[in-house]
Amino acid sequence: MSTQVTLLVNCHDRTGIVAALSDLVARSNGNILDADQHSEEESGLFFMRMQWVLDTDTLDASGLRQALDALAERFGLHYELHVHDAPTRVAIFCSTAPHCVYDLLLKERMGEFAPHVMACVISNHPQWQDVCDHFRLPFYHVSVNAENKAAAEARQREILAAEDIDLIVLARYMQILSPELVAEWKGRIINIHHSFLPAFVGARPYHQAKDRGVKIIGATAHYVTAELDQGPIIEQDVTRVTHRDEVSDLVRKGRDLERQVLSRAVGLHLDRRVLECNNRTIIFR
Amino acid sequence: MSTQVTLLVNCHDRTGIVAALSDLVARSNGNILDADQHSEEESGLFFMRMQWVLDTDTLDASGLRQALDALAERFGLHYELHVHDAPTRVAIFCSTAPHCVYDLLLKERMGEFAPHVMACVISNHPQWQDVCDHFRLPFYHVSVNAENKAAAEARQREILAAEDIDLIVLARYMQILSPELVAEWKGRIINIHHSFLPAFVGARPYHQAKDRGVKIIGATAHYVTAELDQGPIIEQDVTRVTHRDEVSDLVRKGRDLERQVLSRAVGLHLDRRVLECNNRTIIFR
Amino acid sequence: MSTQVTLLVNCHDRTGIVAALSDLVARSNGNILDADQHSEEESGLFFMRMQWVLDTDTLDASGLRQALDALAERFGLHYELHVHDAPTRVAIFCSTAPHCVYDLLLKERMGEFAPHVMACVISNHPQWQDVCDHFRLPFYHVSVNAENKAAAEARQREILAAEDIDLIVLARYMQILSPELVAEWKGRIINIHHSFLPAFVGARPYHQAKDRGVKIIGATAHYVTAELDQGPIIEQDVTRVTHRDEVSDLVRKGRDLERQVLSRAVGLHLDRRVLECNNRTIIFR
Amino acid sequence: MSTQVTLLVNCHDRTGIVAALSDLVARSNGNILDADQHSEEESGLFFMRMQWVLDTDTLDASGLRQALDALAERFGLHYELHVHDAPTRVAIFCSTAPHCVYDLLLKERMGEFAPHVMACVISNHPQWQDVCDHFRLPFYHVSVNAENKAAAEARQREILAAEDIDLIVLARYMQILSPELVAEWKGRIINIHHSFLPAFVGARPYHQAKDRGVKIIGATAHYVTAELDQGPIIEQDVTRVTHRDEVSDLVRKGRDLERQVLSRAVGLHLDRRVLECNNRTIIFR
Repeated sequence: MSTQVTLLVNCHDRTGIVAALSDLVARSNGNILDADQHSEEESGLFFMRMQWVLDTDTLDASGLRQALDALAERFGLHYELHVHDAPTRVAIFCSTAPHCVYDLLLKERMGEFAPHVMACVISNHPQWQDVCDHFRLPFYHVSVNAENKAAAEARQREILAAEDIDLIVLARYMQILSPELVAEWKGRIINIHHSFLPAFVGARPYHQAKDRGVKIIGATAHYVTAELDQGPIIEQDVTRVTHRDEVSDLVRKGRDLERQVLSRAVGLHLDRRVLECNNRTIIFR
Repeated sequence: MSTQVTLLVNCHDRTGIVAALSDLVARSNGNILDADQHSEEESGLFFMRMQWVLDTDTLDASGLRQALDALAERFGLHYELHVHDAPTRVAIFCSTAPHCVYDLLLKERMGEFAPHVMACVISNHPQWQDVCDHFRLPFYHVSVNAENKAAAEARQREILAAEDIDLIVLARYMQILSPELVAEWKGRIINIHHSFLPAFVGARPYHQAKDRGVKIIGATAHYVTAELDQGPIIEQDVTRVTHRDEVSDLVRKGRDLERQVLSRAVGLHLDRRVLECNNRTIIFR
Repeated sequence: MSTQVTLLVNCHDRTGIVAALSDLVARSNGNILDADQHSEEESGLFFMRMQWVLDTDTLDASGLRQALDALAERFGLHYELHVHDAPTRVAIFCSTAPHCVYDLLLKERMGEFAPHVMACVISNHPQWQDVCDHFRLPFYHVSVNAENKAAAEARQREILAAEDIDLIVLARYMQILSPELVAEWKGRIINIHHSFLPAFVGARPYHQAKDRGVKIIGATAHYVTAELDQGPIIEQDVTRVTHRDEVSDLVRKGRDLERQVLSRAVGLHLDRRVLECNNRTIIFR
Repeated sequence: MSTQVTLLVNCHDRTGIVAALSDLVARSNGNILDADQHSEEESGLFFMRMQWVLDTDTLDASGLRQALDALAERFGLHYELHVHDAPTRVAIFCSTAPHCVYDLLLKERMGEFAPHVMACVISNHPQWQDVCDHFRLPFYHVSVNAENKAAAEARQREILAAEDIDLIVLARYMQILSPELVAEWKGRIINIHHSFLPAFVGARPYHQAKDRGVKIIGATAHYVTAELDQGPIIEQDVTRVTHRDEVSDLVRKGRDLERQVLSRAVGLHLDRRVLECNNRTIIFR
């Protein structure tokens, strides 16, 4: 029997780490599919992603986890082990803008996120029923207003639990999540911000961009943290603009950026290609 | 007899402006080489660049200027008229980094800025003599330190006057110019900042970029104003980076951006393709 | 009363053309919204796009057309006049790939092509009924096979006539149109080719790209002509690839390029920003 | 004692290869600085680059080579081992265009290729003496014309031998090398072609690009093989153009691409980040 596993590691670089990790793969009679490791000279940090086929007759996942725990203690390393037996389940939070939601759902239908699953859509706006019917996934309408914030979030938590969600994607969701929810889902909420962060934090970034007269606009997907638009950046992209582009054109051009950047970030996360470290991400492409 | 002229115009859009300007060209028996005009719906502003061959037997440059002054009053328009009889003379200010300076001087040698002239190099470091000898242009060594700032700037002004300079290019020049000089040379000092402004204003932008974990770095050429890195942006460009890029790699990759963005900005200015308006620029490409 | 008109002009450059055209606008008591004109020094060609509000009490569209015909004769100019009273109606031809079709339909729903209309979808595959129901536009299933080519095309022509179609968009349509249809719809059929033309003409361009080991892949939207993948290019875009990208990854990455490039090309055509001249296009952005 | 080594490997993927290679590193008591390995699912090929510090008291370079030879036989793998004790020496061949040569020499002066060396410039044009004096490296003037081709190449070979050259860079060199020289220097001659290959092979690619009406132009650095512009591609880049760009503008814009693409390709080769396989390259960034 065999299972595919992905291991992400970061720690301060010390001689012997790679040897110990390679030995682990060898003991599992494993075949490495892809590996990428790098020692950062300036910081002394070591980053690795390794994906291999684990022969579970020789070493099973729990045996592997035990061995990794021992190495973690010995080398002071942080690791994430992902055993590919259960697909990740994603909840999409959205408000009114359709472009990012369609992008995620269409890409799922085309198999781009397989074996992972866009499990449900949650919105404070009711019009998503029709879209969810078309793409055949459940829709949950949760009204949110100034008075019912706590109750609405309680309802959202219920849905997340019932749907067994692993990742929340804010696809142009215009509501602020509570600090508690953000803390609880650390590293598991991805947001798309419609600017090239750290430029133009906050509201109306395309208006800010027009006022400042930038020649290039961007979009940024990042993990959500307590501080607005300050979380670790996963992916960014940009496009050129001219004086012929009014704010409405920036909005239109930006939509193509936003949906692509968000979908790429979600794909990178689902493929376990993102390692968080010191409020930045290492992306193993 | 004929002269080539370039006219830049901005104003609040009103019916009749284009007709009046076209009439002006017609009265000069002129042949339009290139024209680009746009009315911004959201702001109600009108921008135009027109380049034509003026038949100076029919209407000379001073006659044209008189006619434009009349239109300026009638329509509340701002205009810049550039008569292509004298080349623009550029002074390059630099410190120790060579990449931008070589780029400007090599591009001049290849005729990319013709008929305009890189007239001289001014630096507080003496090693530029060798480079200036190689490219055959005068070098002025002006020591600048905490004590002699005023005297140094007085000497720089003398050189600017003696060399009949029209445009100052700060090619990674690490000294701050006085507010008086900046005010006096408004719209005629171009600086290169090694970040994608408005992200990472100020010192050590590549370190800031590494810390923030951005996936793309940039460079920005802008007119210098009193407020640091806040002047109107002329040109920007970006490149992708990964976790394998240490700060020293960002610096290296950034150099290719900086010199290109600066040279393009200088070229756009010299070709009279830049119109300043409300602390942003309109670039007529 | 007023109507918005867009005029596209190309001809050999001669003194007086712009004056004559400006005079025309003036006689229509018109207000220019956007104009862009350029004389190509190397070829001696002149290109112009002008968009203005025609005061139809002073000069109506047919009067304008008469005046333009006179100028066409006098200066040997070619012109296209578009009077913005009726929206352009687009038929989307497709096979099985959904990404380009969804992109066009979603962008229409978001108002990006307004006032123009995605009028219908025509496919040899029946599964589009569901998509068309969702986006609320008619779907026509026309089976095409080796035996019924002529009959199928006859049926397509009927639909094009009945739906009053002005533009055909081949959104990854895998059938070859007859030379007669192509000739008849010259300049009014846009295709998306999944390579950076002229590289990788013909079948399986992503396989060709992988074999050749290119570091960048692209997509190209062009008008269809009799010769495969040789028509005038309207828009192109590219993205970087690495050795980690297998052919299936190129296909996936390419889809994001294809849909964007096709949608941009369709938008440029609908906005009358494309001028064909000598098997290339001038794009007025 | 320790030496840094870089190992490049390609072969058909078989279980045990990585384990055997890791074991080798472990036996050398080595510390891995950077490793990147990938199994291509579609082709069944395996590619790896590994850079580590070899403890030469435990296993020296010749011992390592012996061990690798044994693995090569056992697994049918191809390998390149680079021991970083001697810098690579580069000869630059050029004709009249200065931009690529200046770029290489300035980047060397700034330390970007260290510890490798731009050893000499060889040209059939005499004007490079001045440039080489400025950058302080030897210049060899070798006249080439229709009559003296063989003699000229003999002279070039002498220089290559005398200067102990490892890599030839054709920095817009307009002469054809003999098939013998090309064969002898297989994988060690880098050329810059001024198009996005495979588009626009051969002469005057910018004219071809203008005629075809492409919206993006490119440059390609590749290893030279017997067939013109068909060698394995190392690096490419592109930039947008418009109808305002005449051929002379494409040439000017292209120069910025050419020098950057060539310098990046040279850097990748010198850093041993290029693996040739089946007429394409794997680039380990």
